[in-house]
Amino acid sequence: MGPDSSQEPQTISQVGEFNLIDRVTAGRHQSPGTLLGPGDDAAVLAAPDGRVVASTDVLVEQVHFRFDWSTPHQVGRKAVAVNLSDINAMGAVPTGLLVGLGCPPDTPATVVDELADGLWEEAQQAGIGIVGGDMVSSPSLTISITALGDLQGREPVTRSGARPGDVVAVAGRLGWSAAGLAVLGRGFRSPVAVVGAHRVPEPPYGAGPQAAVAGATSMVDTSDGLLADLGHIATASKVAIDLRLEQVEVPQRLTEVASALGADARHWVLTGGEDQALIATFPANRPLPPDFREIGVVAEGSGVTIDGKDYEGPTGWEHWR
Amino acid sequence: MGPDSSQEPQTISQVGEFNLIDRVTAGRHQSPGTLLGPGDDAAVLAAPDGRVVASTDVLVEQVHFRFDWSTPHQVGRKAVAVNLSDINAMGAVPTGLLVGLGCPPDTPATVVDELADGLWEEAQQAGIGIVGGDMVSSPSLTISITALGDLQGREPVTRSGARPGDVVAVAGRLGWSAAGLAVLGRGFRSPVAVVGAHRVPEPPYGAGPQAAVAGATSMVDTSDGLLADLGHIATASKVAIDLRLEQVEVPQRLTEVASALGADARHWVLTGGEDQALIATFPANRPLPPDFREIGVVAEGSGVTIDGKDYEGPTGWEHWR
Repeated sequence: MGPDSSQEPQTISQVGEFNLIDRVTAGRHQSPGTLLGPGDDAAVLAAPDGRVVASTDVLVEQVHFRFDWSTPHQVGRKAVAVNLSDINAMGAVPTGLLVGLGCPPDTPATVVDELADGLWEEAQQAGIGIVGGDMVSSPSLTISITALGDLQGREPVTRSGARPGDVVAVAGRLGWSAAGLAVLGRGFRSPVAVVGAHRVPEPPYGAGPQAAVAGATSMVDTSDGLLADLGHIATASKVAIDLRLEQVEVPQRLTEVASALGADARHWVLTGGEDQALIATFPANRPLPPDFREIGVVAEGSGVTIDGKDYEGPTGWEHWR
Repeated sequence: MGPDSSQEPQTISQVGEFNLIDRVTAGRHQSPGTLLGPGDDAAVLAAPDGRVVASTDVLVEQVHFRFDWSTPHQVGRKAVAVNLSDINAMGAVPTGLLVGLGCPPDTPATVVDELADGLWEEAQQAGIGIVGGDMVSSPSLTISITALGDLQGREPVTRSGARPGDVVAVAGRLGWSAAGLAVLGRGFRSPVAVVGAHRVPEPPYGAGPQAAVAGATSMVDTSDGLLADLGHIATASKVAIDLRLEQVEVPQRLTEVASALGADARHWVLTGGEDQALIATFPANRPLPPDFREIGVVAEGSGVTIDGKDYEGPTGWEHWR
């Protein structure tokens, strides 16, 4: 049957809060670590390590995503991916998510259904579930996610442990999300590979724990951009970081897209955020874990340089600036 | 020195995201259970019990609070209190908070400072700190809080364990927040006791673990209103609950305020939300823990009645309805 144009889509105010919570939680698969799932005052999760890793990210419509560029399903996946990436960047494995959703009353219920499907799909890829949350009325659609994780007996890999002489390495893609954003900003919808990378990042899940096992001395995910996030490590570790430009791969696909747009693919790779790659430092003269590739070195001093020189141009994203 | 009217207050877009995060986190006291606090990709908290309790609440300006009725400091305290109340209602003790804050770019930085002071003050009353979070740009001021807690080796007290024959009891205040809301809604700012109860609830911290130790079979906090929240226990436990009206105290202060406004104080007590009191059920013929007072009984069946009869009128709050 085709769509029935005589029937208006139901809004969430017509469906109501408690019915809507049922719609987005009923029949979903929880992991064995979810000891008490949605429906009570709070959730209870296993924390086998005796410690819990926790991170919160907030995504706001028109600020972090646009429904003319991404489907609700893609927005849901991205919201979970950016959060799980923070757990990955500590060297931990995720154990569960809490989702706070603020929606205008006239939001079609199908938008919330699709968003929830996206949230759940990305969560299940990481082997976890949405264990709790809150749904409220809000003038703009807002998704607030808290991810919890377990360190499996290892120490967390922080931003502050890099030491002079360490090797800097990256796992995952760089510049793809920025390329996708540039394409969308020009009004195009293809190539799908780069546009898709902006809509739904593909964090290298598993590379975080891999780095921790391999003795990573510091780690961060690329949410603000490679140079900006390396700056966070340099500042927190009180060291200097020098990138070796020849080691920083610029994918052929990005070069082609940049050429078509009159843009600079290397700039995307160096400064583009939201790819949720991992940057980590490792002791030298040891093999890197398989997902990581070397891109630079740690030295005494401060700041981030490229082949010993400052990068000219804006290096990353900061809110309200 | 008086205020310098020639100097415009700084907005958060002038201060910038990273400076603002410093302002709201620097120099604050963390509890010993905070193993890694703000400033990294994620926080790390002790979870001595091997399980972690987690709850998220989202509060939105004009929906959950108004700055013409409450100061930023009061809004901060309330946001934390409603969240810690959920941990309390599981019989757990809080261990840490994550705060996601969305603000319009033109928000005065002092508003965020005062809000942060309120968040921290209420957190410290519970002996915990804000261990992480996120600050983003948003069209409306939005506070999303995740509270984490520890069960200290006990089983969580859920909504689903009430059994016929149990006693229903309450700890904390009922109807005060609704009375305060009614006063503010008429344009008054006093009496301070009831207005203050709406601005900043006073959850009976400690009564949750107390109830768990005393063998509570079910528990919930009154965020939606006494009858509505009892309904949540009745539904989840598949039982009926009968309130004994003579046991449900209507405080003299509320009777006076209701009389002045031409309102019904008993209605506030039965249906007013946001007091964050605790309602719990206990096995009969045992002494109740000191903070609890008996208000009814659990029976076979379904639904909530008062002296055996249905309550006439709306019983609670539901979003978008």
